[in-house]
Amino acid sequence: PRDVRFSCNSWMLDVWEFCKQDKNRVIFSLKVGLAVLLVSLLILFQAPYQIFGTNIIWSILTVAIMFEYTVGATFNRGFNRALGSVLAGILAVIVAQIALSSGTVAEPYIIGVSIFLIGTVTSFMKLWPSLAPYEYGFRVILFTYCLIIISGYRMGSPIVTAMDRLYSIAIGAIVAVLVNVLVFPIWAGEQLHKELVSSFNSVADSLEECVRKYIEDEGSDDPDFFKSVIDEFPDEPAYKKCRSTLNSSAKLESLATSAKWEPPHGRFRHFFYPWSEYVKVGAVLRYCAYEVMALHGVLHSEIQAPYNLRLTFQKEIQEATSQAAQLVRCLGNDIQDMKKTLKASLLNGVHSSTERLQRAIDMHSYLLASTYDPMKDRSSRIIDKLSHVFTPTLSDLTEQLANLESEGDDLSTTPVSLNTPSESLASQQLDSYHDTMRKQCKRLHSWPSREVDTAFDHEELQGGFETNVIPRMKALESTAALSLATFTSLIIEFVARLDHLVEAVDELSKLAKFKDEIL
Amino acid sequence: PRDVRFSCNSWMLDVWEFCKQDKNRVIFSLKVGLAVLLVSLLILFQAPYQIFGTNIIWSILTVAIMFEYTVGATFNRGFNRALGSVLAGILAVIVAQIALSSGTVAEPYIIGVSIFLIGTVTSFMKLWPSLAPYEYGFRVILFTYCLIIISGYRMGSPIVTAMDRLYSIAIGAIVAVLVNVLVFPIWAGEQLHKELVSSFNSVADSLEECVRKYIEDEGSDDPDFFKSVIDEFPDEPAYKKCRSTLNSSAKLESLATSAKWEPPHGRFRHFFYPWSEYVKVGAVLRYCAYEVMALHGVLHSEIQAPYNLRLTFQKEIQEATSQAAQLVRCLGNDIQDMKKTLKASLLNGVHSSTERLQRAIDMHSYLLASTYDPMKDRSSRIIDKLSHVFTPTLSDLTEQLANLESEGDDLSTTPVSLNTPSESLASQQLDSYHDTMRKQCKRLHSWPSREVDTAFDHEELQGGFETNVIPRMKALESTAALSLATFTSLIIEFVARLDHLVEAVDELSKLAKFKDEIL
Repeated sequence: PRDVRFSCNSWMLDVWEFCKQDKNRVIFSLKVGLAVLLVSLLILFQAPYQIFGTNIIWSILTVAIMFEYTVGATFNRGFNRALGSVLAGILAVIVAQIALSSGTVAEPYIIGVSIFLIGTVTSFMKLWPSLAPYEYGFRVILFTYCLIIISGYRMGSPIVTAMDRLYSIAIGAIVAVLVNVLVFPIWAGEQLHKELVSSFNSVADSLEECVRKYIEDEGSDDPDFFKSVIDEFPDEPAYKKCRSTLNSSAKLESLATSAKWEPPHGRFRHFFYPWSEYVKVGAVLRYCAYEVMALHGVLHSEIQAPYNLRLTFQKEIQEATSQAAQLVRCLGNDIQDMKKTLKASLLNGVHSSTERLQRAIDMHSYLLASTYDPMKDRSSRIIDKLSHVFTPTLSDLTEQLANLESEGDDLSTTPVSLNTPSESLASQQLDSYHDTMRKQCKRLHSWPSREVDTAFDHEELQGGFETNVIPRMKALESTAALSLATFTSLIIEFVARLDHLVEAVDELSKLAKFKDEIL
Repeated sequence: PRDVRFSCNSWMLDVWEFCKQDKNRVIFSLKVGLAVLLVSLLILFQAPYQIFGTNIIWSILTVAIMFEYTVGATFNRGFNRALGSVLAGILAVIVAQIALSSGTVAEPYIIGVSIFLIGTVTSFMKLWPSLAPYEYGFRVILFTYCLIIISGYRMGSPIVTAMDRLYSIAIGAIVAVLVNVLVFPIWAGEQLHKELVSSFNSVADSLEECVRKYIEDEGSDDPDFFKSVIDEFPDEPAYKKCRSTLNSSAKLESLATSAKWEPPHGRFRHFFYPWSEYVKVGAVLRYCAYEVMALHGVLHSEIQAPYNLRLTFQKEIQEATSQAAQLVRCLGNDIQDMKKTLKASLLNGVHSSTERLQRAIDMHSYLLASTYDPMKDRSSRIIDKLSHVFTPTLSDLTEQLANLESEGDDLSTTPVSLNTPSESLASQQLDSYHDTMRKQCKRLHSWPSREVDTAFDHEELQGGFETNVIPRMKALESTAALSLATFTSLIIEFVARLDHLVEAVDELSKLAKFKDEIL
């Protein structure tokens, strides 16, 4: 009993948390209860029951089926239900008259065929892409038609049956709509607005989180290094939110569809509010978020730039990203407060800090290029170890390297170009650089994973150990450094896409008539 | 009338195309018609009507609401409907007995309160995330409960009402299920299987298309250069498909949910077939597709590597991508044919060709690094032009450059390192290189777009024209070259993620007991 009480308590806590997260949930539930109760009263009390009769049970059905979370969705369903019922009613009355006038023998055949046709046509139409939002309407047409024509056939006077049913459906619909709109309305537009603003924030958060981890992370003994790409990354809450932003397109679209049905309300005071622009802005934001996903990919990729290399560009990277994140947040805030602010200075700042990043990468691009030179590098312990194992002399190696290079080279280059840059690095820097590199290589050993390893070994034995291993080490080293270039390029591309985002938000603020607010 | 006939004809053609695309659509429509017709016959004919009475209209309602596209979804709805109805029936009977025994005064109050409570509780429960798939079931509970208890109150004998209704609902449900399963069944599992396989193909196609365009495209007079990132790219059919793959997570999940309800059928012959693994494989595939999206971003980014630089790595890039695409297609085929093949040789090929790409990038990394040197470059027409305009002598510029460099540089580097690489380029290569570069710069002029331009000019005038413009040109040039590094890094990252994909497919083939097929 103690366990039961404990689990019961924790369950109660869960429910409580769930309610606290979003009070609208409780409000919605109580509203449904209220709506059903109101309709039931029409039957429970003697007076209305004597007027409306048993047909009033259709009102209950209508409320239960029509009552949706947001006002817009309820209107949408109501419209589908109403139009579907009316169309089905008209159709049913026409077909019933035709069937009646064709004699008692033909009547059931005509009714049967018409039911089959209505079933087939409505089902086909709801599969048509542009009619898909009205799926519920087609369902309503189908069953209302069947009900009216069948009851008409068995109980006579289809018009009376149809009218009675329409009345009670109308009562149910009116109760559902009134309760939904008048008692603590939950507007789809408001939800869409909040959803979009929070997407902006989660993209900005995720960008900053990604870059912070990239720069802070020593990476050497990182426990989550061997994590799969699809793991949850529990230490990255913003990433999770950003990922859910990527999958939110359907949600935004359905909210926008609902919002279009809503009358002007709250802050959204003019008619034909451009809800579809919200979807467009969401799409552009998603395109920015793809870059963040790619950044996250580089962050957790198995080939990493050495830590001190990352440290070199720390200032520029941080400045560019924090400004980019600030711009994204500022755009989100503008939407939230429904105001226009001049983003020129911010955009300017983002662009110039991105250019500083570009320039920094350019100035130090020899760091990203091949810095590895076995002849002149006195502290290359890796090569010392390798040459010890593989026996060819160091000069042999460089010869082979040069041969290999001129082979694979389409331009008329001289191998000399490889040898100069590393001179310029202080030997202390080189030391720690190669230290990181060694750790890197240890890691990289696990890269061509599982069964492939053996196949590689085989190829190496065939193709000559010496020519393969050294260039590969070099290639890995260089790719590791280039991963920094990739990281910065992705940041730059993110910034380039921000232009489109600013444009989309501008368009939205123009169409939605946001307040000008020149600071 | 001619226009009308023409538009009518084109409309007919559209419908015909729509049917031809997927014959299941027509089959589904006809099945709905058949199911409704069958239920209607129970009323249209005299004999069954005398047995079942008017309650049989509930069967029609059940068919119209329960009949779904796939077998699994129909089972799922049927389960919801059945369980909901039974639960609601039991509850209603209990409450009705309590209400009856408490006297005629208290009765309507008890019924009213119970309706309110049921409405509130079911609505709250369907918002709970883990209960969300049973949303329909809660709706059924709500309206069935109301209908039974109200009719019981007004028409007496709630148990009889409840039983009658359950009978007719059961008849409707049985008809719906039988027609759905026996007449050309559309299995959710089969759909899920096809969907996943086609996602594999679209990712592979999109990767190849992207890389083909990157290498083929001269880029100089590309009309779609100023296109927005969210344009449709009508000349890239595979990209569109790949993008829709990214948004298909909800579809895969709902198909998997439905598929779990289906009995063993067709090729999926054993019980507890691991449909949820399909969703997992789909998620890993989506992570690969994010890289393709990033590649597509680089392809259409406004900063491009010069054409001849791209050409230099053409062979390696093409080889790596075509092998990666082949592996993806091979995985897709394995799933399609439900067989296990050894992917070791393919994986091996992909990894070694990716390593060749890495090595090539490394060998030529001086091309990606700063190749621009105003002192020694005889053919730099850009600088000539610039120096003509901005008047400081060339030696001034290089001095400032050196200053700027040692300023922004944390490591102890000498500006000498920048000067060597360009010597190695033949002047002819340089010529075309700078030609491309000039075009590039013309383009890049449009980058810091709209109002920012003026702000930049302002800053430049303040901060000194000379120190800003030249490094910026250099930075853009280098970033342009590094965009190639980004492109290749993204390909390499894509290949790294393929390991996870292979693993996920392996897991699927193990759990789904695919046939071993060692070639």
